[in-house]
Amino acid sequence: MNNREIRILVVNPNTTASMTEKIRASAESVRGAGTRIAAVNPSEGPPSIEGHFDEAMCLPGLLREVQAGEAAGYDGFVVACFDDTGIGACREIATGPVVGICEAAMHAASMISTSFSVVTTLPRSVPIIERLAVEYGMERRLRRVRAADIPVLALEEEGGGARERVRDEVALAIEQDGCEAVILGCAGMADLTAWLSEETGVPVIDGVVAGVKMIEALVGAGFKTSKIGAYAAPIPK
Amino acid sequence: MNNREIRILVVNPNTTASMTEKIRASAESVRGAGTRIAAVNPSEGPPSIEGHFDEAMCLPGLLREVQAGEAAGYDGFVVACFDDTGIGACREIATGPVVGICEAAMHAASMISTSFSVVTTLPRSVPIIERLAVEYGMERRLRRVRAADIPVLALEEEGGGARERVRDEVALAIEQDGCEAVILGCAGMADLTAWLSEETGVPVIDGVVAGVKMIEALVGAGFKTSKIGAYAAPIPK
Amino acid sequence: MNNREIRILVVNPNTTASMTEKIRASAESVRGAGTRIAAVNPSEGPPSIEGHFDEAMCLPGLLREVQAGEAAGYDGFVVACFDDTGIGACREIATGPVVGICEAAMHAASMISTSFSVVTTLPRSVPIIERLAVEYGMERRLRRVRAADIPVLALEEEGGGARERVRDEVALAIEQDGCEAVILGCAGMADLTAWLSEETGVPVIDGVVAGVKMIEALVGAGFKTSKIGAYAAPIPK
Amino acid sequence: MNNREIRILVVNPNTTASMTEKIRASAESVRGAGTRIAAVNPSEGPPSIEGHFDEAMCLPGLLREVQAGEAAGYDGFVVACFDDTGIGACREIATGPVVGICEAAMHAASMISTSFSVVTTLPRSVPIIERLAVEYGMERRLRRVRAADIPVLALEEEGGGARERVRDEVALAIEQDGCEAVILGCAGMADLTAWLSEETGVPVIDGVVAGVKMIEALVGAGFKTSKIGAYAAPIPK
Amino acid sequence: MNNREIRILVVNPNTTASMTEKIRASAESVRGAGTRIAAVNPSEGPPSIEGHFDEAMCLPGLLREVQAGEAAGYDGFVVACFDDTGIGACREIATGPVVGICEAAMHAASMISTSFSVVTTLPRSVPIIERLAVEYGMERRLRRVRAADIPVLALEEEGGGARERVRDEVALAIEQDGCEAVILGCAGMADLTAWLSEETGVPVIDGVVAGVKMIEALVGAGFKTSKIGAYAAPIPK
Amino acid sequence: MNNREIRILVVNPNTTASMTEKIRASAESVRGAGTRIAAVNPSEGPPSIEGHFDEAMCLPGLLREVQAGEAAGYDGFVVACFDDTGIGACREIATGPVVGICEAAMHAASMISTSFSVVTTLPRSVPIIERLAVEYGMERRLRRVRAADIPVLALEEEGGGARERVRDEVALAIEQDGCEAVILGCAGMADLTAWLSEETGVPVIDGVVAGVKMIEALVGAGFKTSKIGAYAAPIPK
Repeated sequence: MNNREIRILVVNPNTTASMTEKIRASAESVRGAGTRIAAVNPSEGPPSIEGHFDEAMCLPGLLREVQAGEAAGYDGFVVACFDDTGIGACREIATGPVVGICEAAMHAASMISTSFSVVTTLPRSVPIIERLAVEYGMERRLRRVRAADIPVLALEEEGGGARERVRDEVALAIEQDGCEAVILGCAGMADLTAWLSEETGVPVIDGVVAGVKMIEALVGAGFKTSKIGAYAAPIPK
Repeated sequence: MNNREIRILVVNPNTTASMTEKIRASAESVRGAGTRIAAVNPSEGPPSIEGHFDEAMCLPGLLREVQAGEAAGYDGFVVACFDDTGIGACREIATGPVVGICEAAMHAASMISTSFSVVTTLPRSVPIIERLAVEYGMERRLRRVRAADIPVLALEEEGGGARERVRDEVALAIEQDGCEAVILGCAGMADLTAWLSEETGVPVIDGVVAGVKMIEALVGAGFKTSKIGAYAAPIPK
Repeated sequence: MNNREIRILVVNPNTTASMTEKIRASAESVRGAGTRIAAVNPSEGPPSIEGHFDEAMCLPGLLREVQAGEAAGYDGFVVACFDDTGIGACREIATGPVVGICEAAMHAASMISTSFSVVTTLPRSVPIIERLAVEYGMERRLRRVRAADIPVLALEEEGGGARERVRDEVALAIEQDGCEAVILGCAGMADLTAWLSEETGVPVIDGVVAGVKMIEALVGAGFKTSKIGAYAAPIPK
Repeated sequence: MNNREIRILVVNPNTTASMTEKIRASAESVRGAGTRIAAVNPSEGPPSIEGHFDEAMCLPGLLREVQAGEAAGYDGFVVACFDDTGIGACREIATGPVVGICEAAMHAASMISTSFSVVTTLPRSVPIIERLAVEYGMERRLRRVRAADIPVLALEEEGGGARERVRDEVALAIEQDGCEAVILGCAGMADLTAWLSEETGVPVIDGVVAGVKMIEALVGAGFKTSKIGAYAAPIPK
Repeated sequence: MNNREIRILVVNPNTTASMTEKIRASAESVRGAGTRIAAVNPSEGPPSIEGHFDEAMCLPGLLREVQAGEAAGYDGFVVACFDDTGIGACREIATGPVVGICEAAMHAASMISTSFSVVTTLPRSVPIIERLAVEYGMERRLRRVRAADIPVLALEEEGGGARERVRDEVALAIEQDGCEAVILGCAGMADLTAWLSEETGVPVIDGVVAGVKMIEALVGAGFKTSKIGAYAAPIPK
Repeated sequence: MNNREIRILVVNPNTTASMTEKIRASAESVRGAGTRIAAVNPSEGPPSIEGHFDEAMCLPGLLREVQAGEAAGYDGFVVACFDDTGIGACREIATGPVVGICEAAMHAASMISTSFSVVTTLPRSVPIIERLAVEYGMERRLRRVRAADIPVLALEEEGGGARERVRDEVALAIEQDGCEAVILGCAGMADLTAWLSEETGVPVIDGVVAGVKMIEALVGAGFKTSKIGAYAAPIPK
């Protein structure tokens, strides 16, 4: 048995603390008995990540958090933005494994279904997620990426109808796409999973949950980021 | 925190009890604190799985073990043969998730490296594993499948040189393939991982270890096999 | 001229004799002058193949029939289930060529059209056929797999409306999918081909017919299953 | 039983009559009992097809032969150039099926092996054949296209060493490529197949043989070229 | 600075002079200051290219024009038919670069959008363009090929409603396909681009424009057609 | 004729001014008569880009330069780092087109050859460039990415042997890869192109040259970055 405590750092790369808290709660709710979770966000950068520019602008803050986590000896890292921004750079910094929540969710979905759809927030994120699916080898599993057409931070507000929009799009995915599972394509949707799984009877997968469990699995298996190629430590300048 | 005990059934689909024992030990060594592992093998069927015919002939036994495990309430299942034979059928039977060890190893490798090679036993298994890589979307990650050219059961014998053959092929993979990780492509190689990782400094991934941790992750996340499509329960005849 | 008589064994891997008879009639109707056809089914196993579990459970019976056929000197084998279950294992046993009816139909369709759709029985078979299309390199030719949503054995009953459901789905494929040919995705549909081709004016391809003619072609060309790799004879245990 | 006589026209698209004769002999040697073969070549155009320009320049002659064959009521057509030049145009003209010899050989190879290499004449043809493999969905089956580096017409001369060059390259393919079958990538190699199959013990596939048997299969199955899409009859000008 | 004058030959491979004139005007309107454009068409061959047969029949005329252009010292060539017929053969003849207008348009579209649809004339051209997209590596960028269902030469007539059909299909592409750009899939549509771009606010790409600018770019960069492989000069016969 | 002056901003995303100067000279040498080139680099960030971390850390500086360029009314932008870092973010900012030099070089290579290899500096960049090839649809064209195994800034020093290492690797690519063109995979190699093209007789493509000419082409064609999807302007925060 692997009795060693596992310490995981979940980094929300945007600066919205309420979202970090939701992510932390979600991560906490599924962590294993021997796992300790910390969830952080950068103090500077975009408050939400909606497109390539935001993806780029959050990187200095994200990388600083991962560097700090590496110095503090964390065993593994989850980047809690569904665009999986900066994963390669994080892997260069980290000794332990790093996963993005889109990546984790797609791998998990591929082991419990033959196909899945993704429901995200904004239409502009659709091609970004489609490209990630190609990168992860999931293009034949991905039926469709759907946008609920809501801003990311709308998910932080009660009563604005954002959750209902997500639910409706999940229902459409099940009805129209021929998919066998649905992935929620935004870290801010982490608290909707249980509700939606129950309501639909179909596996609804949250990336934060998938990410935390994947990192626990990789760390618990003793797997570390390979350092002989693309993810070698950054060359000091 | 998810405090519930997880019960995992690892099924070696061949009938060689010594291999089952090695698999059990490997699984046991990495299980989480709250996980209980059982490892079984069918009493009838081929003693080793070397090609499509053996894959087919082990299925009745494999499925009987999974059915028994499902009846006994196991939370998840690992099929411990690198050909991932019968995974779809097992998923129809099981409520919880099912993973094959090739599948688990490839997903894990893809999160800690950009490319990997596989070292298996027999040349006849090379195209089988290449086809699995396509099925899992890993064809762009897979650099090469290499065969050490040893019978599966040679791995059960001390002193016959089989392990050295595996080690030599792993070394060649690192030297010649431009890969960043190596997967051991046979459940019978489970005890070689630590040795080879240490000797090479490169992540060497055993499928049984990867499979157990992936199942722990999926079960711990609350993900179950989707029942609305390809993996719906078998239609009673 | 190749004057040698060709003896082909068509194996229906389920145990429903009426379906075997329909398959035999269909095969018989297209065989060449110098070909002799036998059609058999196992005595034990599932009466219909509807999903992965049934696919697995029919294998011992299927392989026994192919082994008997090989011993009896058959020149080639057709596996008459659209899931193409067990083809690799059959190829290990057989000296002559072996084809599955999905495989044969897709290859044939690709030589008379630029794209095709498949109409099968149950929705659960859709992802199975999509995966076969990838394996055969036909994913860019396959427009869509459609399910008529009828149990396999409903095709054996007159007057239950099953044939009309198939016809309607074929019509939809032609109207909506932009396909140039339609493949009937179940051996039990073998008797509908002529009717549907005539009614639609579009090539409607039955897998049994395609399989018999492909085997005749391969045998007549003198091509045998390669024995230097994946399809080498099973290793005696 | 399908008792109707089948009439097949094999068109060598270059003007070298000795090659046409070799092709005719090869086709004749494998035709079924009820098949009649005619082999023709255009009277004008390039004497050999070595690259895209020759491919283009042979088309008027090739199409004239197919038009004449269609008028004469041939049931099916084989285009006997391994570049499969003009197949789409021939399909627009023909009522019955049309196959190219590269296409036929690759489909056949994929049913008796999991992978194959091709041995052709000139290096300049290598990328042409690689592109055809993609078009036919065979890119994952194709291990390598090798060039024996001999002009096409050298195959027509005894004693120049061309055949030995082909044999040597076939041997290298088997040794180095991990392939399970070898396709001869030039119609002018049709007479080498038996010799090479025997010498190597590996299936060696000639495109003319494969093409004739595939056309027999398609015609015998009653399959015609689809006329509702890409292969509709040319629009009169 | 590259001050050398660039001379480009645009070849319309059909014989319709009014279309050549429209193409010439379109090319002329975007040429750089140092570029001289000539636009020609063969005197013999099909008046429009609608399918594979027409593609084949225009080749002798097309190649004669390119040969003449090469002799006259043109620096680069544009083949102004959206089927990109004969490009490989033209590249064997030409020293400078050669582009097809489909190819040029797809490359351009991929640099200003993440996905595009194509609007062409006839349904029979849809699979031809889909196959080109695969050849150019654009299959993941191409959302859909749509046919306005009008003959090519209808675009030459004022008042017949052909342009409105194109505009309607462009509008549907934007509404339904989730594409970010639209390519006009026929050289005869060259005069509609400005109108459609303005009306829709979406990049509408004409192949002739894209082709001329791509050839200017390649010539201006000093890039010539590679002569060490597939595009080596034709072997004299 | 398009007489309007074109103003292009070439951004070297690292801070090494000598490399920016080399890039500027290279761009200047191929610009069209009506084009004005400016070349800049950020004042802060990594002095060279060697891996994902450097890619990420240069983004704030790169984006600031593009924002300034957009404000100054530049018509198009070239990002002069072969990793094509931040292209998507730049496209959100820019009205005109933006190209990366890897992207531009691969598109150009695909129009003058059927396949190419890339010679880059460091082994760690190999998987990054392989992934870009997939993203651009060039995976079937790319024969191999080779690393000369020299630090980026070694190219800035005379006499250190770096250029000879590049030349040797280019020679190996031509000899061993079966490629028809070679792309130099680092902006710092821009001054080697003419020398290498001459020495080898094979098209040697520099990304800066390709990028400048592609941007001239896109701007000259009137094509702008699509703003209805992934590249819509960043949402103000």
